[in-house]
Amino acid sequence: MEIKIYLSEQRLIVEKALEQYMLASESEQGVFAAHIEAMRYSLFAGGKRIRPILCLAAGAAIAHRPTPDTELLPIACALECIHTYSLIHDDLPAMDNDDLRRGKPTSHILYGEAGAILAGDGLLSWAFDLLSNKNSTSLPAEKRLAIIHHIARAAGSLGMVGGQALDIAHENQEFPFETLRAIHKSKTGALITASIMAGAIAAGAGLSQQEALHCYGEQVGLAFQIVDDLLNATATTEQLGKAAGSDASRGKATYPAYFGIDASRDTAKTAVNNALIALKNFDEKADPLRDIAKYIFTRSH
Amino acid sequence: MEIKIYLSEQRLIVEKALEQYMLASESEQGVFAAHIEAMRYSLFAGGKRIRPILCLAAGAAIAHRPTPDTELLPIACALECIHTYSLIHDDLPAMDNDDLRRGKPTSHILYGEAGAILAGDGLLSWAFDLLSNKNSTSLPAEKRLAIIHHIARAAGSLGMVGGQALDIAHENQEFPFETLRAIHKSKTGALITASIMAGAIAAGAGLSQQEALHCYGEQVGLAFQIVDDLLNATATTEQLGKAAGSDASRGKATYPAYFGIDASRDTAKTAVNNALIALKNFDEKADPLRDIAKYIFTRSH
Repeated sequence: MEIKIYLSEQRLIVEKALEQYMLASESEQGVFAAHIEAMRYSLFAGGKRIRPILCLAAGAAIAHRPTPDTELLPIACALECIHTYSLIHDDLPAMDNDDLRRGKPTSHILYGEAGAILAGDGLLSWAFDLLSNKNSTSLPAEKRLAIIHHIARAAGSLGMVGGQALDIAHENQEFPFETLRAIHKSKTGALITASIMAGAIAAGAGLSQQEALHCYGEQVGLAFQIVDDLLNATATTEQLGKAAGSDASRGKATYPAYFGIDASRDTAKTAVNNALIALKNFDEKADPLRDIAKYIFTRSH
Repeated sequence: MEIKIYLSEQRLIVEKALEQYMLASESEQGVFAAHIEAMRYSLFAGGKRIRPILCLAAGAAIAHRPTPDTELLPIACALECIHTYSLIHDDLPAMDNDDLRRGKPTSHILYGEAGAILAGDGLLSWAFDLLSNKNSTSLPAEKRLAIIHHIARAAGSLGMVGGQALDIAHENQEFPFETLRAIHKSKTGALITASIMAGAIAAGAGLSQQEALHCYGEQVGLAFQIVDDLLNATATTEQLGKAAGSDASRGKATYPAYFGIDASRDTAKTAVNNALIALKNFDEKADPLRDIAKYIFTRSH
């Protein structure tokens, strides 16, 4: 299946770049080597790299020339650092209390709670270090600032962090559909949309292209989260590499809990179709974005 | 005492700006109001605002004209957000387990551990949102990127976060003086120096001025941390607003633990003198920086 080859190639590109940017040499790490090892453990624990890949694919959908690695890859890597930090903090005993992630012990199991909190804090800070480092990217300053702002807004209290706070506050509670939608949109959707916008801005997208990609991002983000919820409800722990059924046992606000499996799958399918419609004025350079949207749905069963 | 009036005036300026930038209106906060309230609680719990004040004072020491508020204040506020997030995370049960800060219950006592972790994550993200928001500052993009990079580097794994990791790793352990120095330099010194550098860069400091202010920052940061250690060892909980003697009971790496009270006080005094020498080529516009350095030492007894 072609999309799987594309995703695996892109994943390798992202991981090579992460290795390059993540303070690999001991001389750079100095006295902080043990702390940085904790950051690297989670960063290289086998993620799907979907946010950086979406960033690269959005850039490629816009660009009129091959994009130099130095323009998009530092941004893609920063997005993965932010995603990884959010997983480390979400897994903490005080939050979701997960021992297993991607089939491996979570950060606090290996490095203790303090070590895991600081590994997360370090990855979030590193993302902005990377985004603002003039040696790491050749993009003009104005574009980089716009990208930093998109990402900071999406990662923070009106986005991912706020969504996690909302999610935890509503465990084991009745809530209206609007709350479920707000949790999904902020906790997962915001950073996915920002990943796409960051790639688009870097590649010089015009306003109408940005609007279309924003719509694509929101729909793909929604589909992605519903599919994640569906897998948590229907797959095994072995298939997932993390605890299956944990959403239900925690009384989490999910689409399957609210609408059941079939209606949730229909909603994910509709979101994927809406994402494809958003790309209707894009040429074949946007095919990877189209294929990613379709692939997300195939994961749902 | 004139410096006390100066500090209290500057503190008011910073707090007014924090109020302006910190999503005060309920309509902006929307569904995230409870989470943002937790962020605001710690941010407005009565800090000394020494980092933002140093940022403003460094800018004023350089500027050839009165600096518009829009140039320095968003940066000053971002620094205070980062400092506050670090206190929230340091106080967590998994870290220093402090119930009291500035005479008030710490974040996790009021909002639970998950709420406190997320309040910290939110404040760190918000700092970079503020620094990159084109509506909040009139500084040119290149300068803002340089400032963001200074701050991100100082806040992260090669600075404050790395220093906290090192500090925790060395509790109740024997260690060489170099380790104590590395902990102080990264955990406290880095963000203090970055605060000064951020103000200096914003105000257009030349390279030799930046070098002098960097030296001033390192020495003031050292004096500040030694005095903090001295107060922890010698003052009462009531005077401090947080648990006195906690460093000793935790076996923390401090100057008093290593050298005793008198030698530590001498070292702080020398650092203040070095900070003043670093400013020797600056005119009277740098007097607040000089007075702050001297004031830090007067707090030591």
